[in-house]
Amino acid sequence: MSPRQSIEQQRHDEVLDATWQLIAEVGYGRVRIADIAKRVGTSTGTIHYHFDTKEDVLDAAFRYAVADARRRSEAALAKLDDPWERLVALLEAHMPRADLIKEWLIWLQLWNEASVRPELRSLNETHYGRWIDFVESIVLDGQERGTFRRLDAREFVMRLLAMMDGMAIQVTMGSSEFNVERVRNLLLGFAREQLLPAS
Amino acid sequence: MSPRQSIEQQRHDEVLDATWQLIAEVGYGRVRIADIAKRVGTSTGTIHYHFDTKEDVLDAAFRYAVADARRRSEAALAKLDDPWERLVALLEAHMPRADLIKEWLIWLQLWNEASVRPELRSLNETHYGRWIDFVESIVLDGQERGTFRRLDAREFVMRLLAMMDGMAIQVTMGSSEFNVERVRNLLLGFAREQLLPAS
Repeated sequence: MSPRQSIEQQRHDEVLDATWQLIAEVGYGRVRIADIAKRVGTSTGTIHYHFDTKEDVLDAAFRYAVADARRRSEAALAKLDDPWERLVALLEAHMPRADLIKEWLIWLQLWNEASVRPELRSLNETHYGRWIDFVESIVLDGQERGTFRRLDAREFVMRLLAMMDGMAIQVTMGSSEFNVERVRNLLLGFAREQLLPAS
Repeated sequence: MSPRQSIEQQRHDEVLDATWQLIAEVGYGRVRIADIAKRVGTSTGTIHYHFDTKEDVLDAAFRYAVADARRRSEAALAKLDDPWERLVALLEAHMPRADLIKEWLIWLQLWNEASVRPELRSLNETHYGRWIDFVESIVLDGQERGTFRRLDAREFVMRLLAMMDGMAIQVTMGSSEFNVERVRNLLLGFAREQLLPAS
C-alpha cells in the first residue's frame, strides 16, 4: 500500500468509526452526513466521496462494527483451547457492558431500520448467520472432545444467542431487572446447565 | 357515558390504532401527524386535540398496543385452568406470526427510540416488568400445584421471554433460520424441558 492509499484507507476507517458511533448515539434516522463530517473534522464532500447514499453509510458502518466485534472475538479466543473457556470468553467479549452498549445499539438500529426497509435484511441474514455458525463451531468442538453433552448444537446456540439479544436490549433500556451481572449469570448458567454433564 | 363522550372515545381509539400501526409500518421517526390524520380520515387539528407532542403519540400508541396484547392474553387464557396449557396458550397468543408481527415491531420501535431518548425507558420498565410478573405467576401456580419442577421461576421467565424477544426480532427480519414454526418449537421445547418432570 502506498502512503497515499494508506492515508485514504485511514480516513475511510475514521469515517466509518464516527458513523457507527453516531448511529448508536442518536439513531440512524437522525444522523446527517454533515454530522459525520463534523465529527471526523472534514467536509461533507469527503463523506460523499466515500458513500453515495445514506443507505451505503448504514451498510458500511454496520459492516465495520461487525468486523470490529469479530476482531474482539478473535483476540479473546486466541490463546484458549478448552471449548468451555472459549465459549465463556466469547460471551464475555460481547456482554452488554457499558463499554459495549454501542455495539448492541448498532444491531438494534439495524433491526429497527430493516423492519421497515426489507432491503437491509440481508445484512442481518449474513452476519447473524455467521455469528450462529461461529458459536456452533465451538459447541461442536466441545462435543467432539467429549466435554459437552450431546444436545442439538444448533438449537442450543439459537436459544442462547436469541436470549443474549433479548437481554442485551433490556440492559440498553436500563432495566432494573436485567443488569449486566444478572445477564452474565443467566447466560452462563444456561450454557453450563445445557452443555456440561452434571458432576 | 353520553353519546357525545362515546363518539369522542371511539375517535380517540381510532387515532391510537392508526398511530401504532403506522409506527410499525414506517417507523416512529417517519410518522407525521398528517399521516395519522389521513389514515383516520380527519384533520391534523383533531390529532393535536388528542396529543400535544409526538412523544405523547408514541407513548399513547405503545400503551394502546400493550393493552390490546393484554386483552388477547386474557382471552386466550380465559377458559384454561392447567398451568402448562395456560403457558402454552400465552406463548401462542404472542408468537411472531404474520398477523402479530406489528405487535413485535412496536416493541422494536420503542426499544430503538428509547435507546437514544432515555425518557421513554419507563414504558419498557413498566410494561416489560408486568409481562415478566404475569408469566411468572403462571409458573409459580404450576409449581404450587406440583406439576412444574421447582426451578427459579423468575430466572426461567427472564430467559424464556428474552429468548422470545430475540427470536421474534429474527422472524421480523425474515431470517431463513428463525421462522415461526422453528421459534415455536424452540420456545415450547425449552419451557417443556425446564418445567415438566421427565416422564
